[in-house]
Amino acid sequence: MAQRTLRGTGATPRSGVGTVVWYGRDISLPDPDGAVDPEAEIERFADAVGTARAELEAEREATAERVGESEAAVFDAHIQFLEDPTIEDAVETSISDGLDAANAVDDAFGEHIEQFEGMDGRMAERADDLRDVRDRLLRLLTDGERVDLSDLPEGSVVLAERLTPSDTAQLDPERVAGFATVTGGRTSHAAIFARSLALPAVVGVGDELETVEEETEVVVDGDGGRLLVGPDDDEHEAAAADSGATVVEGAVETADGREIEVAANVGRPEELEPAADRGADGVGLYRTEFLFLDRETPPSEDEQYEAVREALDTFPEGRVVVRTLDIGGDKRIPYLDLPEEENPFLGERGIRRSLDPDSDLFATQLRALLRAAADGAGDLAVMFPLVATVEELDAALAALDDALDDLEARGVDAERPEVGVMIETPSAVFVADELAARVDFLSIGTNDLTQYVMAADRENERVGDLHDPTHPGVLRAIHRTVEAAHAADAWVGMCGEMAGDPDLTELLVGLGLDELSMSAVTIPDVKAAVRETEYSTASELADAARFAATRSAVHDALTQ
Amino acid sequence: MAQRTLRGTGATPRSGVGTVVWYGRDISLPDPDGAVDPEAEIERFADAVGTARAELEAEREATAERVGESEAAVFDAHIQFLEDPTIEDAVETSISDGLDAANAVDDAFGEHIEQFEGMDGRMAERADDLRDVRDRLLRLLTDGERVDLSDLPEGSVVLAERLTPSDTAQLDPERVAGFATVTGGRTSHAAIFARSLALPAVVGVGDELETVEEETEVVVDGDGGRLLVGPDDDEHEAAAADSGATVVEGAVETADGREIEVAANVGRPEELEPAADRGADGVGLYRTEFLFLDRETPPSEDEQYEAVREALDTFPEGRVVVRTLDIGGDKRIPYLDLPEEENPFLGERGIRRSLDPDSDLFATQLRALLRAAADGAGDLAVMFPLVATVEELDAALAALDDALDDLEARGVDAERPEVGVMIETPSAVFVADELAARVDFLSIGTNDLTQYVMAADRENERVGDLHDPTHPGVLRAIHRTVEAAHAADAWVGMCGEMAGDPDLTELLVGLGLDELSMSAVTIPDVKAAVRETEYSTASELADAARFAATRSAVHDALTQ
Repeated sequence: MAQRTLRGTGATPRSGVGTVVWYGRDISLPDPDGAVDPEAEIERFADAVGTARAELEAEREATAERVGESEAAVFDAHIQFLEDPTIEDAVETSISDGLDAANAVDDAFGEHIEQFEGMDGRMAERADDLRDVRDRLLRLLTDGERVDLSDLPEGSVVLAERLTPSDTAQLDPERVAGFATVTGGRTSHAAIFARSLALPAVVGVGDELETVEEETEVVVDGDGGRLLVGPDDDEHEAAAADSGATVVEGAVETADGREIEVAANVGRPEELEPAADRGADGVGLYRTEFLFLDRETPPSEDEQYEAVREALDTFPEGRVVVRTLDIGGDKRIPYLDLPEEENPFLGERGIRRSLDPDSDLFATQLRALLRAAADGAGDLAVMFPLVATVEELDAALAALDDALDDLEARGVDAERPEVGVMIETPSAVFVADELAARVDFLSIGTNDLTQYVMAADRENERVGDLHDPTHPGVLRAIHRTVEAAHAADAWVGMCGEMAGDPDLTELLVGLGLDELSMSAVTIPDVKAAVRETEYSTASELADAARFAATRSAVHDALTQ
Repeated sequence: MAQRTLRGTGATPRSGVGTVVWYGRDISLPDPDGAVDPEAEIERFADAVGTARAELEAEREATAERVGESEAAVFDAHIQFLEDPTIEDAVETSISDGLDAANAVDDAFGEHIEQFEGMDGRMAERADDLRDVRDRLLRLLTDGERVDLSDLPEGSVVLAERLTPSDTAQLDPERVAGFATVTGGRTSHAAIFARSLALPAVVGVGDELETVEEETEVVVDGDGGRLLVGPDDDEHEAAAADSGATVVEGAVETADGREIEVAANVGRPEELEPAADRGADGVGLYRTEFLFLDRETPPSEDEQYEAVREALDTFPEGRVVVRTLDIGGDKRIPYLDLPEEENPFLGERGIRRSLDPDSDLFATQLRALLRAAADGAGDLAVMFPLVATVEELDAALAALDDALDDLEARGVDAERPEVGVMIETPSAVFVADELAARVDFLSIGTNDLTQYVMAADRENERVGDLHDPTHPGVLRAIHRTVEAAHAADAWVGMCGEMAGDPDLTELLVGLGLDELSMSAVTIPDVKAAVRETEYSTASELADAARFAATRSAVHDALTQ
């Protein structure tokens, strides 16, 4: 048995074993009273600034490439702070007065950090940037090594306070056996990232994680949400042997014969083949944002056509549901010049932006989709994100008709795909009957829907307990949506994180969902769960759950 | 007829006539090639910094007093920028090189502003602060006068790009005949402020407002949403004579005898008497945040008791609905040390914060309320804000019981008031049946409910069109709430901006609302509208509206 077991939230139902590499640990400063050679120290400082600048530029470039321009912008801010003349003067003065470079940097930055911490919220964030720059310089000046996430020893388990999007973008999944973080929940960026790569991960372990030493052997148990420190032989073997559940090829149905489509959420072309390998019947959510990232101008119609064709050809017998461009909120694209918003999750996102009359992005994307529908092997379906009103849907459908007319007039092969609406806003739930009457299907995006129904930011841990789709408020919203879809002879799917949790499969089948789409890693488990489900029993379970008053009553119903 | 009519959004159904005073206009710099005496210019600069500091300190103090510590904090940031040594050095160097003080300030700040503008969002906001400080210095150096909003000539009509909370806090309603702004919508801070003081106001006029000259005579037509520039005699007289609709004393009922309670939203004790004067039957929303603002520590139980007693004694025959402390979101209180949140409207607001087990703020407030209920003349009701789950309500009710037991054990007079829940989150709508079964009443807060149902920040103009409670999604949410309340024998009110729009009174009565609570200024109009309504007809109208697919279909139903 492991010497010690820490508990957190499992992010991926996989286990991995490896050796701890800490990312982003503290630095120890030299004794400030030691004797120094001021000239040498000033040169060391200048060298450190030069190296830091080179590092920042390299990381900036790598992040822009792997993640996007907007995430890379933070490095520009860091470069500016690195070269701030006021701070530079202060450091050099301290060194001239007899201090070593590391302590001089610590003092000079410390003063500015304190100043900004005392200011209001937005200013206070500047303190965090200054802290990052200071730590980078101190690491260089104290020979503290910065772990290079893109070049870890094979079999590393990364432990960190948290992993930001630019951190995970650098992680090489071939070399990392898993990771664990102090902070974060099931829908945090790091957790979603882990699932998309089937990487064992445990998040939200808490401060106890800090007690795990560098180079210890650990098992990351993403299923049980545990970190085993110093596992015994059996634990080690079990983790090393874990390659996930058995893949189930082809369509599945419940024990009493109700067919449920189990599809994959895909965020980039490299994920298509792995999804097919894990037994996906098709793609239930193809996010098209990747086409727009890491570049200076929007992709051409042809580029978009090729990308969608590739997906359709990967699933010749299946269906690929493409979501039209969904930017805004936490997804930003520099060349589109999006505004800063006070509450970005309540701002100009999804279809709101596509319907901007001054932009032809939407028309171009629709033409690419209609052409791919005509030429690709699989069946295309198109859905619109963040619809809140019937007016928006009518406008999107009109744009689709225009694109079709446009292509036909030019004699280009085009085909009208299945069309659907994402149900993510509470308003869409309330008018789901009207929406469903106009389209072929509805697809419930539970991450956003939960966030809006519960009025709880999914990235904010202070309200993390509210961000749970098993609250009765959310279950009732899902139920209302399914009823509205079926009354209008539309099929209804789900493509949020909830759909990939095998413990909830029976509930979702019982609520009447026709399709479940999820990160590829959980497809085998969910397919197995579908086969074990009796629809008639599941249906009673779902009624019990949605009539429950509280989440704990829902959970009681689910575990009876 | 007026020489010219500009159109915007009427904020208050009142008209006023007066003389234009522009607030916050541009400054013209001297010719940079003119000859200067460097020593004199450096002294002028030092004097300007000293005066600016004194101004900032005075404004800081005034804002802290009138609005609150958190709004005042921005002045601290400005003082820091004013005295930034890097900028000071740059200005002095330029002056030594032969530039005048005004141009030197403009250059030195300009460089920093540009630097920050190039950075990401949070940093970019620093540019706005620097701009404010620069403009203040330039006004002093170029003899440009800064309009003192607290000391305007009587009969002034203030025109401005926008009015911030610290601007409106300085406005003296006795001297201002009205205002008009380039930006803003019906639910913007400035518009709500205008309504609470019954001040004629038009917001969102657009850039054309800039063409109205200083000292022109204008009529602010808050009813028609118009600004009449150079009104003729009739227009002048009509505006000068406008004292609002006739006050209706006492309870009102529809033409066919359904009684509707019409109450006031009140944000501070000074608004109680004016609300009674405008014919309020009681208070439908007493915001208790004022008790916590402008101070260093939370108010004592006795202070809170006295404040609630005052309200109950102002409405001896009526009911006063007190909302427990609702902070977070856009309402901040420095000594409570609230966290910064990425999406504050989706964060730890309302009851979420009151239920913090580490704080006794909620228990103290509840004890004060229970004592006031026993001693005050009117009837007290208490409601909890931003409830999303039954668990939260159960916890709040348990806290109320604990407070009652506590007081009884000590032999202190206490009485259990009516208890209600605010319906602001979509989740609360979906579980309204369970909530209503546990309380005496529900009160729909349409500002937040609309924001969450439509997933549209009410402060974000880019999604302003979605922030409208006449979208079918919101109407259906209201209908579901009313049905759930009545099925549980609870009464149901509304205290958002929607309740104060007399054009929507028939719809709201038809939807089944028992109480409407609003800014005092619109009470006479809404009471008049209730009397003109036939409940039976209104009920049909409401059904037509809520079955409409689109907002324009809703509006067609309303105007038939």
